[in-house]
Amino acid sequence: MSRKDQQLVPISLTDLEHNAHVTMSINALDYYRSGANEMQTLRDNQDAFSRIRLRPRILRDVSKVDTTTTLLGHPVSSPICIAPTAMQRLANDAGEKATARAAAKAKTCMILSSWSTTTAEDTIAAGREIPVDTETPGLPLYWFQLYVYKDRVATEQLIRRVEKVGYKALVITVDTPFLGRRLADVRNVFKLPPHMTMANFENKDSKVTMATILDQEEAAMEAAEALLEKNGAGKKKETRVIRQESSLAAYVVSQIDPTLSWKDIAWVRSITKLPIVVKGVLTAEDAIMAANIGVEGILVSNHGGRQLDGVLATIDALPEVLEAVRGRNVEVYLDGGVRKGTDVFKALALGAKAVFLGRPILWGLAHDGEEGVSLALSLLKQELDLAMALAGCCKISDITRDYVQYGHAARL
Amino acid sequence: MSRKDQQLVPISLTDLEHNAHVTMSINALDYYRSGANEMQTLRDNQDAFSRIRLRPRILRDVSKVDTTTTLLGHPVSSPICIAPTAMQRLANDAGEKATARAAAKAKTCMILSSWSTTTAEDTIAAGREIPVDTETPGLPLYWFQLYVYKDRVATEQLIRRVEKVGYKALVITVDTPFLGRRLADVRNVFKLPPHMTMANFENKDSKVTMATILDQEEAAMEAAEALLEKNGAGKKKETRVIRQESSLAAYVVSQIDPTLSWKDIAWVRSITKLPIVVKGVLTAEDAIMAANIGVEGILVSNHGGRQLDGVLATIDALPEVLEAVRGRNVEVYLDGGVRKGTDVFKALALGAKAVFLGRPILWGLAHDGEEGVSLALSLLKQELDLAMALAGCCKISDITRDYVQYGHAARL
Amino acid sequence: MSRKDQQLVPISLTDLEHNAHVTMSINALDYYRSGANEMQTLRDNQDAFSRIRLRPRILRDVSKVDTTTTLLGHPVSSPICIAPTAMQRLANDAGEKATARAAAKAKTCMILSSWSTTTAEDTIAAGREIPVDTETPGLPLYWFQLYVYKDRVATEQLIRRVEKVGYKALVITVDTPFLGRRLADVRNVFKLPPHMTMANFENKDSKVTMATILDQEEAAMEAAEALLEKNGAGKKKETRVIRQESSLAAYVVSQIDPTLSWKDIAWVRSITKLPIVVKGVLTAEDAIMAANIGVEGILVSNHGGRQLDGVLATIDALPEVLEAVRGRNVEVYLDGGVRKGTDVFKALALGAKAVFLGRPILWGLAHDGEEGVSLALSLLKQELDLAMALAGCCKISDITRDYVQYGHAARL
Amino acid sequence: MSRKDQQLVPISLTDLEHNAHVTMSINALDYYRSGANEMQTLRDNQDAFSRIRLRPRILRDVSKVDTTTTLLGHPVSSPICIAPTAMQRLANDAGEKATARAAAKAKTCMILSSWSTTTAEDTIAAGREIPVDTETPGLPLYWFQLYVYKDRVATEQLIRRVEKVGYKALVITVDTPFLGRRLADVRNVFKLPPHMTMANFENKDSKVTMATILDQEEAAMEAAEALLEKNGAGKKKETRVIRQESSLAAYVVSQIDPTLSWKDIAWVRSITKLPIVVKGVLTAEDAIMAANIGVEGILVSNHGGRQLDGVLATIDALPEVLEAVRGRNVEVYLDGGVRKGTDVFKALALGAKAVFLGRPILWGLAHDGEEGVSLALSLLKQELDLAMALAGCCKISDITRDYVQYGHAARL
Ligand SMILES: Cc1cc2nc3c(=O)[nH]c(=O)nc-3n(C[C@H](O)[C@H](O)[C@H](O)COP(=O)(O)O)c2cc1C
Ligand SMILES: Cc1cc2nc3c(=O)[nH]c(=O)nc-3n(C[C@H](O)[C@H](O)[C@H](O)COP(=O)(O)O)c2cc1C
Ligand SMILES: Cc1cc2nc3c(=O)[nH]c(=O)nc-3n(C[C@H](O)[C@H](O)[C@H](O)COP(=O)(O)O)c2cc1C
Ligand SMILES: Cc1cc2nc3c(=O)[nH]c(=O)nc-3n(C[C@H](O)[C@H](O)[C@H](O)COP(=O)(O)O)c2cc1C
Repeated sequence: MSRKDQQLVPISLTDLEHNAHVTMSINALDYYRSGANEMQTLRDNQDAFSRIRLRPRILRDVSKVDTTTTLLGHPVSSPICIAPTAMQRLANDAGEKATARAAAKAKTCMILSSWSTTTAEDTIAAGREIPVDTETPGLPLYWFQLYVYKDRVATEQLIRRVEKVGYKALVITVDTPFLGRRLADVRNVFKLPPHMTMANFENKDSKVTMATILDQEEAAMEAAEALLEKNGAGKKKETRVIRQESSLAAYVVSQIDPTLSWKDIAWVRSITKLPIVVKGVLTAEDAIMAANIGVEGILVSNHGGRQLDGVLATIDALPEVLEAVRGRNVEVYLDGGVRKGTDVFKALALGAKAVFLGRPILWGLAHDGEEGVSLALSLLKQELDLAMALAGCCKISDITRDYVQYGHAARL
Repeated sequence: MSRKDQQLVPISLTDLEHNAHVTMSINALDYYRSGANEMQTLRDNQDAFSRIRLRPRILRDVSKVDTTTTLLGHPVSSPICIAPTAMQRLANDAGEKATARAAAKAKTCMILSSWSTTTAEDTIAAGREIPVDTETPGLPLYWFQLYVYKDRVATEQLIRRVEKVGYKALVITVDTPFLGRRLADVRNVFKLPPHMTMANFENKDSKVTMATILDQEEAAMEAAEALLEKNGAGKKKETRVIRQESSLAAYVVSQIDPTLSWKDIAWVRSITKLPIVVKGVLTAEDAIMAANIGVEGILVSNHGGRQLDGVLATIDALPEVLEAVRGRNVEVYLDGGVRKGTDVFKALALGAKAVFLGRPILWGLAHDGEEGVSLALSLLKQELDLAMALAGCCKISDITRDYVQYGHAARL
Repeated sequence: MSRKDQQLVPISLTDLEHNAHVTMSINALDYYRSGANEMQTLRDNQDAFSRIRLRPRILRDVSKVDTTTTLLGHPVSSPICIAPTAMQRLANDAGEKATARAAAKAKTCMILSSWSTTTAEDTIAAGREIPVDTETPGLPLYWFQLYVYKDRVATEQLIRRVEKVGYKALVITVDTPFLGRRLADVRNVFKLPPHMTMANFENKDSKVTMATILDQEEAAMEAAEALLEKNGAGKKKETRVIRQESSLAAYVVSQIDPTLSWKDIAWVRSITKLPIVVKGVLTAEDAIMAANIGVEGILVSNHGGRQLDGVLATIDALPEVLEAVRGRNVEVYLDGGVRKGTDVFKALALGAKAVFLGRPILWGLAHDGEEGVSLALSLLKQELDLAMALAGCCKISDITRDYVQYGHAARL
Repeated sequence: MSRKDQQLVPISLTDLEHNAHVTMSINALDYYRSGANEMQTLRDNQDAFSRIRLRPRILRDVSKVDTTTTLLGHPVSSPICIAPTAMQRLANDAGEKATARAAAKAKTCMILSSWSTTTAEDTIAAGREIPVDTETPGLPLYWFQLYVYKDRVATEQLIRRVEKVGYKALVITVDTPFLGRRLADVRNVFKLPPHMTMANFENKDSKVTMATILDQEEAAMEAAEALLEKNGAGKKKETRVIRQESSLAAYVVSQIDPTLSWKDIAWVRSITKLPIVVKGVLTAEDAIMAANIGVEGILVSNHGGRQLDGVLATIDALPEVLEAVRGRNVEVYLDGGVRKGTDVFKALALGAKAVFLGRPILWGLAHDGEEGVSLALSLLKQELDLAMALAGCCKISDITRDYVQYGHAARL
C-alpha cells in the first residue's frame, strides 16, 4: 500500500491531519508538526481542552443556530479563523493563494504570515477573486502578521505595502525574539526548497532575503555561524557542525530584532492607523501592559507549542488574560490546539472572541489545496454549529462561562 | 478460530460485551458502541464511577438482602432498569419483544424507544405473555420514550397509542434536537437493513417513515441533502459526498423537532395524564426548570456519550441535579456507563432512585436474545446484591451518601 | 525455555512473585493473585502507597537500627507479620507448617487461617520445633483467624482447640459474609485438589467439611445450587451452569454465617479470654464500634482486594481509623499491598502498629517452602531496616507522621 | 547494525543519554542509570519538573542574555554545575581529568567525588592546564565531595589534601550512611574493573582501600559478610549468596561512618576554613539545622533517586527548604533530574542559586570524553539561554517566582 493509498475520506480534522501526514515530505511534515524541545506544551494545548467539561442546557429552540460574529467590528461567518503560518507552499503549491480563497469563501479572517511564500499583494488579490455572496452573512477579512525586523526601514516598507492593499490589522508576533528549538528541524537541517522564497522580501532592495541564505553557500555559512556563536559554541567550527542547524533559526538570529519591546509597539502604533493585535500573550501582567499601550486585540498564543516548551496551554492561560483586561476595550483571541467544535465552544465560553487555526489549515492545504482548506474550515464550523445546538446556544453571545467547568469534579 | 468461537461463558457484563462484539455486523456494532466524536464522554461515564471509592460497613446481618424498590410508586425487583435503545432487531431478530419478556421476568422497568423496530403494541404484548409470578416481589413496568416530531399530530397519535396499551410513563428525550456526530456511523453510512423498519411509524398515514428514506433513492437524497445544507456545505454536492452521512442523522434533521422547548413539555403535560420523565438533564439549572414545570422524573443522561462529546459524566452531574431538586417531588434516575453492581450502588448512594442500562441490554440481546437480556439483568442484580451485602446494606434505602467518597484521598 | 527456567535469584518480593507465578498451577495461581471483579482495589492497595512521599531526616547516628516492637504486649523482631491465607498447601506441600517454622525463625507473628490445609494443632507444633534463640530479641507468636460458622457449636469447639494449643489472639474476619466474586476462580471453577482438606474441620462430628462437598457429587450440587439460588438465578439450572461457580464461594454460602453482627463479637468476647482483633475494618464509624465493644485490635484490611471491589485502599483508610480510636486502648494494624520496606515504613508513620503480608508469604512458599517464607520475611525486614536508616530513624517509635506526606505537592 | 552505529548526532541531553547507553558496558551502564528499588524517585525527579508550568513575559529586549552568576562569591559562567559522581573512568578512560578540563573550559563548578578514580590532586591539575580566558566572564571552580569515613584520621588527611591543592569548598554528603539498594547492581554483583581504583585512598597507609576488597578474595568475603550480617541474614552463608551483593554496598558498610551526625559537621567545621555545603537535605527541618550549625550551602538532593526510594522529588522539596532558610546566609542548590534548560530555569525561579548535573555529565564522558562533557554543558547552557530569552529574562536575577506555577490549572 503506497502512502497515498492510506488516505481517508476526511470527516474530522484528525482525518485531515492523517492525510497530510501521508502526503507531505518529511522535511515539511516535521516543520509543520513539531513543537519545541520535548513538545510538552504542544500536547498540553490539546489536553487542556479535554480537561474542561461542558454543561449543556436543554429544551431551547435550536432550529436556527447562528455562528456569525465580528472581529474588531468586521462581520465574519464564524469565530473560526486562520492563524498565520509561514511558507504555505511547502504544503501545496497553491499555498497562501489557496488559503486566501478558502477564507473568502468561508467569510472568515485570515492572518497572513510575514514569512509567506506568496507576497502580501498576490495573496489578497487571490482572495478577492472570490465573488462576494451577498445572501449569506459575513465578509472575508485579511490581517497581516508582522515580524519586526532589525531593519526598521524594511519593516516600515512592509507595513505600508499591506496597508495599501487592504489588510485590516497588524498582528505583531512577540514570542519570537529567537526561534524555539524544534529538534526535528535541527536534525533535518530544515530549509526551504530552492524554488520557494520568503516572497515578501524578494524585491531587490531588501536586505532580509532568506532565499539568499539558502542559495549562496557563503551567506548560509555566515548566518549559521552567527547562530552558533550566539549559542556560545565559539567561532571556530567545521562546516559539518554549522550545517547542523535549521536555516530558519539562523535566519531569525540574523534578521529578527531581539530587542523588541513595548516601545516598539508604540512605534508601530505611531506610524500606522491599522488596529494592532499582539500575538503571544500568556500572562495577566502582559495583558495589562498591552491594554495600557492601547492595542485593539490580544491573541493568547504559545505559537502552537513551538517556542518555549513548558509554558501554559493557551486555554489555561486565557482566564487570567481575560480577567486582567475585563472592562478594557480589547478583544481577546486564542490559538493553539483547537481541533474540535467543542474546543471552539470552550474557548468562547471562557471569553475568547474568536479562535485561530494553525496546523489544521496546513493539513487542509496538503490534503487538497483550496478545497482542503475549505473542508477544514467547514468541518469545524459544522462541529461548532452542532455543539451549540446540543448545548442549547443559538448565537455566539449565548455561549457563556456557565457552559463549562474545569475538571470533572461533581459540583457541590 | 472463527469470530463466533471467541465467545466466552459470560460471568460479567464485560463478557457479554465481548460476545456481542464477536457476533454483530460491523454496521450494527459500530452503531451500538460509538460515542460522539472523540468519545471522551463515553469513556468518562465509566471512568467517573471508578473515581468514587466505597466505604463499606461491617458486622450487620446481611443474610437477607432486598433489592426491591419503586419507580413512581410502582414496585420493581431492583433499581436496575432498561434504557430506551433504538432498533433492537439489529442485535437479534427477536428485538424489542425479547427485551420486553426479559424485563417482565426480571420484574423491572423497560423504556421502549420511539425508534423501535417493533411497534409499541407488539412489544408490550410480548412482555405480557410472561405469567406474573405472585410469589416474588415486583412487577413488570413499561415506559415509552418519546421523540417529539415536527409533525405534532403524529406525535399525539403516538402518545394515544402508548397510553392505550398500558405504558405507564412518557420519557421525553430532550438531548437530541440533532443527532450527535458518531464518526463510525458516518464512515459506515449507517442505515437500517431493508427488511427492518421504524415500526411505530409504519402506518400508511405517517409522514415520518424512515424506511421510505432508505428504500427510495430519491427520498434518501433529499434527506441527506437537507443535512448537508444544514451543515453549511451548500446545495451543489455530488452523490458521493451525500452518501457520506448516516441516514439516521439525516432522518433526525428531516423529522425531529429542533424547536422543542419547555413549552412543548407543558403541551405534552396538558394532553396526557401519564407521568413525564425528562431524559437528558445534566445541570442543576435544568433540573430546577423541570421540577418547576411539574415533571415526575428526571433522567440524568448524556445519551451514553452519543450526543455532545465533552459533557460531564452522568455520575459527576448527578449530585448537582439532586441538590437542585432536593425537597421537590421529583424522582431522579441516571444512565450512562453502568456496568457493575458497584456502579449501581454508587449511583444510589449519591441519591439516584434507579439506574438504566443502554448498551448492556443490547449486548445481552446480541449474545442470546431474551435469555441474554435476562442474563445481563441477573448478573448485574447479583452483583448489586453482593455489593450491598459486603457493604453492610440490607435494603435499598440503607444505601446512603456515607457509603461513598469522591477520589481516593484519605479522610482527615 | 521451560517455565521453571524463568526463575530469578530473588532479591525483592517482586522476584518472589515472579518465581511463584512460573511455578504454580493456574488453578492455584489465579486463586492467589485474584482480586474481586475488576480488581481496582487490588491495584489501588499498592498504588496508594506510591502516592505517599517520604520526608527523610539526615545526620542522625543510624549505626544501630532496631526494628523490634510488640503486638498486644508480645515482643516481635519486627512489625512485619503474616496475614492469614487459606489453603497454603496449594503453594507448597509443606504448607502452613513451613510458614509456622519461618515465622518462628523470624520471631514474628503468624495468623493461621480457619481454612488452613493443616490443623491448628499441627501448625503450631511445627513452629515450636524451632529452638528459641535467646540471644536475639523477639519471640514467635501465633494468632488464629476465625470465621464464625452458622454452626456455633463447631465455632466454639474451634476456639477451645486454639486456646488449648497456645494461639494468643482471635482474629475475627468480618468482611466475608459472602465470598467476593473473583472472576478467574469462577471461570476456573476453583476447587481444592482431592488430597487436600480444610483440615480444621476433618473430625467426624463436624458438619462443616468442605472436603465432603468436593468429594461427593451430590453435596457439591446442593451447595452450588444454594449459591445460585441466593444469586437469584432460580432453582432449575443444568449441571453445566452449576459447575460454573467457585466451590469456595458455594462453601461460604452454605457454612459461614451472614447474620454475623456486633452482638456475635460480644458473644465471642464472652466465651474466651483471648484478645480479639477485628479484621476488615475500613471506616472510622466501625473503628469506633469496635473500640466500644472492647476489642484489643483492629486490622484495617480489605481482604487484599478480594471482597468488595472499589473500596478504599487500606493505607488510605488507615488515617480515619486511627483518628477515630485515638486515645482508646486499641492497637491498629494494616494489611493489603505491602510489598516494600518503604510501604511498611509509611504504614507505621501514619500510625499502624504493624503490617501483615498476605500474598508475599504465599509467593515465598511457592518459591521454596519454609526457606522461601524466610526469604520473603528477611528481604522485607532488610528493606525496612535500610529505609529506617536512610530516613534517620533508629527505632520503630521514631517513625512518626512527619516522615510522610500525601501526594507530591511542594509544601508551602 | 552494531550498537555503536545506533549513535545520534547529539542535539540534546537525551541524545547524549542514548549514545552513552549504546556505548557502555552493562555493568557501568546499570551502575550509572539505576535508582534505588522501584526507582519511583528517579522518575519523579524528572516528572516533577514537568508538573511546573512556565509563565513567560514578552516584549523585553533580550538581545543580550547573561547567564553568569556566583557560587559562594565565586563567579561562574552559568548556574549549571557538575555534581559529584563516583568512578568516572568507568565511562571513559579520561575520567575525572576530562570532566575537570571541560569544567574549566565552561568556567563552571565541578564537585569531585571522594570515590573518584583519579586523585583529587591529579584532577585539579588537569583542570588547571586549561588556560584562563580572561575575555569571557567566569572562572573554573572545584569543590570536593566528602564522605566521612569511620577512620577520622583518614578523613582529616583527605581534607588537608584537598585544601592544599585548591578545592574551594567541602560538600559533605549526608544521605549515605548505607548505600541505597540498586537492584541492577545487586544482580550484576557490581564491581570496579581490576585496573581502576578508588584513587584517593591508594596511598599505602590508608585502611580504606576499595581496591583491596576487590583484589583479594578474602577481604572481599569479609566485607560482603559484614553487609549480609548487617542485613540480618546471619553469618553462615555460602559463597554464592555472598557474591550476590554489590561490592560498593559492602564497601560502604565496612568504611563509611553510619553514626555521622550534626556534631560531626561541627567537627569538620572546626578543623577547616573551607566553606561547607551539606548535600542531601530534603526537609525544612534539616535545612534549619544546617543553617543553625553554620554551613554556607545546602544542596537539595536525593542522590539522583539512588538512596531512599519514595522520597520527594528535589524540585518539590526545594520550596520548603528555601522557605525555612529565608533571610539566613545560606545558598541553596539543587540536583536531580535536571535535563533541560527549562528545568534549570524552573529551579532558579523557585529560588535555587544553581543546579548540579549528575548523570548527564557521565553521558557526555561516555559519548566523547572531555568533548562530550563540554557538549553536555554547552547544550544545556544554550537551552537555558534560549529559555531565558523566550521568557523575557536577561540575567539570572530576573528569574523569579512569577515565572512559574505548580500544575496546569488556570489562575483565577
Ligand atoms: C508550521 C507553522 C508555521 C508557523 N508560522 C508562523 C508565523 O510565521 N508567524 C506567526 O506568528 N506564527 C506562526 N505560527 C504559529 C501559529 O500562528 C499559531 O500560533 C499556532 O500554529 C497555533 O497552534 P495550532 O497549530 O495548534 O493551531 C506557525 C505555526 C506553525 C505550525
Ligand atoms: C445504540 C443506542 C441506541 C439508543 N437509542 C436511544 C433512543 O432511541 N432514545 C433515547 O432516548 N436514547 C437512546 N439511547 C441512549 C440510551 O437511552 C442511554 O441514555 C444510554 O445508552 C446509556 O448509556 P450506556 O449505553 O452506557 O448504558 C441509545 C443508546 C444506544 C447505545
Ligand atoms: C489466597 C488468599 C487467601 C486468603 N485467605 C484468607 C483467609 O482464609 N482468611 C482471612 O481472613 N483472610 C484471607 N485472605 C486475606 C489476607 O488475610 C489479607 O487480608 C490480604 O491478603 C492482604 O493483602 P496482600 O495479599 O496484598 O498482602 C486471603 C488472601 C489471599 C490472597
Ligand atoms: C553513577 C552515580 C554516582 C554517584 N556518585 C556520587 C558520589 O560519589 N558522591 C555523591 O555525593 N553523590 C554521588 N552521586 C549523586 C550525584 O551527586 C547527584 O546527587 C545525582 O546524580 C543528581 O541526579 P541526576 O543524576 O538526575 O542529575 C552519584 C550519582 C550517580 C548517578
